[in-house]
Amino acid sequence: MQKYKIAVVQMSVVDNKFENIKKAKDMIKKAAENGANLVVLPEIFNSPYSNSCFPVYAEKFPGETSMEMMAIAKEYSIILVAGSIPERDGNKIFNTSYIYNEFGELIGRHRKVHLFDINIKDGQYFKESEVLTAGDNFTIVETSVGKIGIGICYDVRFPEYFRILSEMGAELILLPAAFNMTTGPAHWEISLRMRAVDNQVYIAAAAPARDEEQSYISYANSMIVDPWGKVLENAGINENIIYSFIDRKKISEVREQLPLIKHRRKDLYELKAINLSDK
Amino acid sequence: MQKYKIAVVQMSVVDNKFENIKKAKDMIKKAAENGANLVVLPEIFNSPYSNSCFPVYAEKFPGETSMEMMAIAKEYSIILVAGSIPERDGNKIFNTSYIYNEFGELIGRHRKVHLFDINIKDGQYFKESEVLTAGDNFTIVETSVGKIGIGICYDVRFPEYFRILSEMGAELILLPAAFNMTTGPAHWEISLRMRAVDNQVYIAAAAPARDEEQSYISYANSMIVDPWGKVLENAGINENIIYSFIDRKKISEVREQLPLIKHRRKDLYELKAINLSDK
Repeated sequence: MQKYKIAVVQMSVVDNKFENIKKAKDMIKKAAENGANLVVLPEIFNSPYSNSCFPVYAEKFPGETSMEMMAIAKEYSIILVAGSIPERDGNKIFNTSYIYNEFGELIGRHRKVHLFDINIKDGQYFKESEVLTAGDNFTIVETSVGKIGIGICYDVRFPEYFRILSEMGAELILLPAAFNMTTGPAHWEISLRMRAVDNQVYIAAAAPARDEEQSYISYANSMIVDPWGKVLENAGINENIIYSFIDRKKISEVREQLPLIKHRRKDLYELKAINLSDK
Repeated sequence: MQKYKIAVVQMSVVDNKFENIKKAKDMIKKAAENGANLVVLPEIFNSPYSNSCFPVYAEKFPGETSMEMMAIAKEYSIILVAGSIPERDGNKIFNTSYIYNEFGELIGRHRKVHLFDINIKDGQYFKESEVLTAGDNFTIVETSVGKIGIGICYDVRFPEYFRILSEMGAELILLPAAFNMTTGPAHWEISLRMRAVDNQVYIAAAAPARDEEQSYISYANSMIVDPWGKVLENAGINENIIYSFIDRKKISEVREQLPLIKHRRKDLYELKAINLSDK
């Protein structure tokens, strides 16, 4: 497909896995009925975002959350980037995004590569590394709408990660995320826009709706950005679904008129991805 | 110095070298009298920004523009990042920034590394490569206020260049520049802010004042941004000097609270600078 419709689901997340799965399914159904070919959910959509919840909500693949997501992707024949959930693998827990195709088949898995450990004076504190283990892979999935790159939240902080996804052929990079009330206002929009501009790709980021009652308050503002860095849609702070068409022709047009990709001085600097599994 | 004052000179540039040098000197004098320790001028401040002017205004080093800049840096005992001028070297012309210390000595030279060749539908066209030759160096200068990195305008488009400057120890990156009325509104502010956030450095960018009569219209909006990505000062569109203190302690504070530099997955990706002169 040269042009297709994506939906970014900004859902409320509560301290009840069953409710979260039900909410996700309801919103995915609505998105599909509105014509979305691809749906993306927020980071940690089946659990509150807290180190004490991650082990309790974690699932070995395929757990109940994944089974439900596979089923709904198949039922509505959509590509589903199922946000992320705490994944249990042996005695480790990862922050993991599963990606399903229109047949409900698993076509990719991204384990958050950069763990979120920050401690801002008079602002946000969080230390994922106390509970979570980092993934080691650049995640690209081949889909019926082209190559899609996946990052999770704090991964967006690292220009190298996004550059490599785009070099691997991603035309759209999806970011299940949950920025907070300290870093959100300061960095959320410019991060999404700048990664789009630098790499001349579409970017869509899905965050949980804002809930002032949670220990970790999501900044929300889920967004879809085009390869020129223009914000096409912003979900605001409440529960919401935003939609946009992804026009693959737009990518080559932008790259031709403002040839940033071509103008990189590859004779002067080299960015290399290291495949740890080869070691 | 742990804390020092910089001045960013947003000057009008006209089709008369003598007038441009005089204007630069007047504004540098004013900045120095207002206590600036370091002054930065715009890209191509001694000539109109046009391919037909570059060969006419170009100077072999040290030409009349450089002699005047050396003298004024010494007279007012300031570090002077003298924007850029067309530099003639043999039969080549470069877009070159000369950097002088408080004694009027040349301590660095940056030749624009990424030439500006764009052709935006219903927007800006320019092709520097028809007249100019690109430089090959990552430019860092050692000064009495620490290591300073230099880029020129379109260099800011390339995250690799800025990442390498910060890895080389730059705490402040200066960008003589001249964005235009197409790319300026779309990308100027987010580019400056995001390079500052990603690399946790101060960034200051100097542009010519806006002049709707020129063939190439500068977006202006010279800016000083802190390591958190906050815009400290914006010069607007008219002739203006903006000032800010650079607090080197702020850099380590930001890097400690939001440890982006430390959290890079150097086991997963490697960015290497290639020194062409070693080849």
